[in-house]
Amino acid sequence: MVDRLKGNLVVGQSGGPTAVINSSLQGVLEEAKCHPEIQGIYGMLNGIEGVLNENMIDLRKQPPATIKGLSSTPSAALGSCRYKLVPDDYAKILGVLRAHNIRYFFYIGGNDSMDTSNKISQAARKEGYELRVVGVPKTIDNDLKMTDHCPGYGSVARWAAISTMEAGLDTAAIWVVDKVKVIEVMGRDTGWIAAATTLGKRSEDDPPHLTYLPEVPLIPDRFIDDVKTVYERIGFCVASVCEGLKDENGEPLVESKRAIDTDTFGHKQLGGVAEYLSQLVMSKLSLKARFDKPGTIQRVSMMMASKVDLKEAYNVGQAAVKQAIKGVTDKMVTLVRAPGKIYHCSTGLVALEKVANVTKAVPRNFINKEGNGMTDEYRRYAMPLIGDPLPKYVKVKKVLIAKKVNS
Amino acid sequence: MVDRLKGNLVVGQSGGPTAVINSSLQGVLEEAKCHPEIQGIYGMLNGIEGVLNENMIDLRKQPPATIKGLSSTPSAALGSCRYKLVPDDYAKILGVLRAHNIRYFFYIGGNDSMDTSNKISQAARKEGYELRVVGVPKTIDNDLKMTDHCPGYGSVARWAAISTMEAGLDTAAIWVVDKVKVIEVMGRDTGWIAAATTLGKRSEDDPPHLTYLPEVPLIPDRFIDDVKTVYERIGFCVASVCEGLKDENGEPLVESKRAIDTDTFGHKQLGGVAEYLSQLVMSKLSLKARFDKPGTIQRVSMMMASKVDLKEAYNVGQAAVKQAIKGVTDKMVTLVRAPGKIYHCSTGLVALEKVANVTKAVPRNFINKEGNGMTDEYRRYAMPLIGDPLPKYVKVKKVLIAKKVNS
Repeated sequence: MVDRLKGNLVVGQSGGPTAVINSSLQGVLEEAKCHPEIQGIYGMLNGIEGVLNENMIDLRKQPPATIKGLSSTPSAALGSCRYKLVPDDYAKILGVLRAHNIRYFFYIGGNDSMDTSNKISQAARKEGYELRVVGVPKTIDNDLKMTDHCPGYGSVARWAAISTMEAGLDTAAIWVVDKVKVIEVMGRDTGWIAAATTLGKRSEDDPPHLTYLPEVPLIPDRFIDDVKTVYERIGFCVASVCEGLKDENGEPLVESKRAIDTDTFGHKQLGGVAEYLSQLVMSKLSLKARFDKPGTIQRVSMMMASKVDLKEAYNVGQAAVKQAIKGVTDKMVTLVRAPGKIYHCSTGLVALEKVANVTKAVPRNFINKEGNGMTDEYRRYAMPLIGDPLPKYVKVKKVLIAKKVNS
Repeated sequence: MVDRLKGNLVVGQSGGPTAVINSSLQGVLEEAKCHPEIQGIYGMLNGIEGVLNENMIDLRKQPPATIKGLSSTPSAALGSCRYKLVPDDYAKILGVLRAHNIRYFFYIGGNDSMDTSNKISQAARKEGYELRVVGVPKTIDNDLKMTDHCPGYGSVARWAAISTMEAGLDTAAIWVVDKVKVIEVMGRDTGWIAAATTLGKRSEDDPPHLTYLPEVPLIPDRFIDDVKTVYERIGFCVASVCEGLKDENGEPLVESKRAIDTDTFGHKQLGGVAEYLSQLVMSKLSLKARFDKPGTIQRVSMMMASKVDLKEAYNVGQAAVKQAIKGVTDKMVTLVRAPGKIYHCSTGLVALEKVANVTKAVPRNFINKEGNGMTDEYRRYAMPLIGDPLPKYVKVKKVLIAKKVNS
C-alpha cells in the first residue's frame, strides 16, 4: 500500500498542437477530480514556461461546459511551448513546485517533453522533494519509442488519407491541365504522416502514386524517373512527400530559406520540399506541376479527427493520473496493442529516460522495396488508428459512346 | 406550348474541381431521366475536349449506386479541362453534336465555360442546328456575375472558415514560438475565399487578425505595420491572404516562378504570396513566421462541404434541364436570394453573354475601411451559404493562481 501523497497537481501541454491533445487534458482533469489526495488542479500556461514564470491557472474554476468541450476542441487549450530547460531553470522550477505544494506533475508532449519531465523528476529527487512525474504521450509525428503509436497520429493520419484521396481526385479530374501534383505533409525526422497519405489507396493507379519518406534518401533523378513512369502509364501523377526528406548524405533535401527559423531545440523549420520537387518536374519533364502544402492545418483538424485517437488520447491522460496515485513516477504512459486480428490497445508504462530525445523511424518493412510507397504491413498497422472507415467516393464507368465522326 | 425537341443530351464539367460539382451533375441526370424527349444521356470526358475528340460516355449505363454516390464525391467525376476553343473547333464540335443527334447541351463551369457555351450556341444557330444550351454555374471563386453566389463557394468557404479557426487556435497555443502565420487561399482575381476565412471570427482578437484581398492593393510596408500592431497588442498574429494579391499597379504581388505554368486561357498559376509575406515578416520584424498553403485540398473537401451548397448545386443542375425542356437556350441558371431575414434561394436565368469572361469582385462595402478585414455586410451575405453552424471550440478561463515565488 502506497502512502497517499497529498498535494496539488499541475498539468501542461508542450510541442506542436494536435486535434486530440485536449482530450488528454480532459482525461487528466476528470480522473484527478476522483482522488481526494489531489487538492488544487493547476494548468501550466504554455507548458514548462508557465511553471518557470509562475503562470498557472486554476483548472477547478473552469465551467463544466469548458471541460466537456475540451475533447471537441483542437490545438492546446493551455497553450504550448518548445522551451529547452537550461541548468539554472531546475532550481527555479523546484522553487515554484515547492511553493505551491505541487506533488503531481503531468506533461503532455513528445520526446523533448519527456526529456524535460525526466530532468525535472531527477532534480526533485536530488533535492529530496517528493514529486510524481508522469508523461502523457502526444505527437502527430508518431515518433515516440516504446509505444505502439502516439495520440495525435491517428487524427493527422485520417486527415492525410482523406485529403490526399480528395486532392488526388482533383488531379485525376483536371489531368489534361495539371499533370503532376506534389502534396507536402509534416514530419521533421520521420515519414509517419507521409505514410498515412496512402491509406485511402485501393489500387496501384489510385493517388498517391508515389510516396517519399525521410527514412529512404531521395535521389532527384530517381524521383524524376518515378514520376515519368507513372505519367507515361496513366497520364498524370500525384506524389506525397514528407517535409523532412533527406538526401544521400542524410542532409535535408531542401534547406529552409528562413535563417531565423530555428526553434530553441535547434530544430530547423523545414518546408519547401514540394515546391522544389514540383519545380524539378517542370524543368526536367516539362510537365505542369503544382503543390499543396497544408502546413499546420493538417494537425488540428477536428472535423477529420479519428474517434479511436480521441478515445486513446483521453485514456492516456486518465491512466497517467491513476498511475501517479498508485505511486508511479518517472514514467511515460504507453499504448500497448493486443496481439490478434481485432484491434485493441491498453495502456502501459515506460521509463521516461527511454523515450526522452529519441525518435522511432518508420520501419523499413513498412516501406516498399523501391522506397516510393508503403507496404501492406504498414496498412495493417495504421488502418485501425484512423477510426471510422474512410469515405467511399464513386467513379463513373467509362462506357464510351461509339465514335461516328472519327470512327 | 413549346415543341418537344427530341434527341440526346450531353453534359460536361469544366474548370477547377469543387466539392459539389458532382451534385450538379446528379441534378442534371436525375431530371433528364424524367423527360422522355431526352433519349441518350452522354457525359463529356474532360469537358469540351470530350466533344471535340468524341470521347463521350453513356451515363444511362451507370449503376444506380454511382449516380447516388455523386453527391458525396468531390472533384469532377467526368473529368474537367481548361480548353479555350479556337475558331476551327466550332465546326468540329457541331459535327460531333449533329452526328450524335445531341440537342441538349449542359456545361457546368465558371465564366470561361459560359463563354465556351455561348460560342457553341451561336455557332449552332448560325448553322441552323437546333440546340438548347444551358450553363450550370460552378466556381469556388464565387466570381460569376448576375447570380447571388456560385455553387462551390459555400463549401470552400466553410472549409476556409473552419481551417482558419483551427490553424488560428494552433498559433494561439504556440505563440511563444510561432509569432506570425500567413494562410494562403485560392482566388486568381477575387478575394471571395480569403473573405471566408473570417467567418469563424467572434471578436477582434480571434484569428485571422488580418485578411487581404486582391480587391485592395497590398502595400508591403502597410502590411508590416498591420502585423506589428496586432503582434504588439496580443503577442502573435494570424493573417489570411488571397493567392492573387495585387500591388499598387494592379500587377500580381508575386510573379509565379514557374515559367511554363500558364494554362491555355493565359491565366498564370499564382502562388507564393504567403511565403513571400512570411519572409517579409521575418526580415522586417525579426519575428518567426510560417505559412500554410493548402492548395487544391481546400476546394474538394467533402468532409467540410456545406449542406446548403450541396443542395443548391443539385438544384441548378436540375433547373438547367427543366428550363431547356421548356425551350430555354443561351442562358445560365442563377441563384436568386429572396429578400428578408430568412435565407432562401431560388433559381433564375441570365443570358450566357452577360456572364461570359467577366468576374465579380468582392464589393468594397464587404471589406473594411483599412482594407485588412471584412465587414458585417459580408458576414450577413456569406454565413447562410456555409450551411450548418460552425463548430464551437472552448477556451479555458485564465484564472491565475496567486504567485508565491515572484509575487
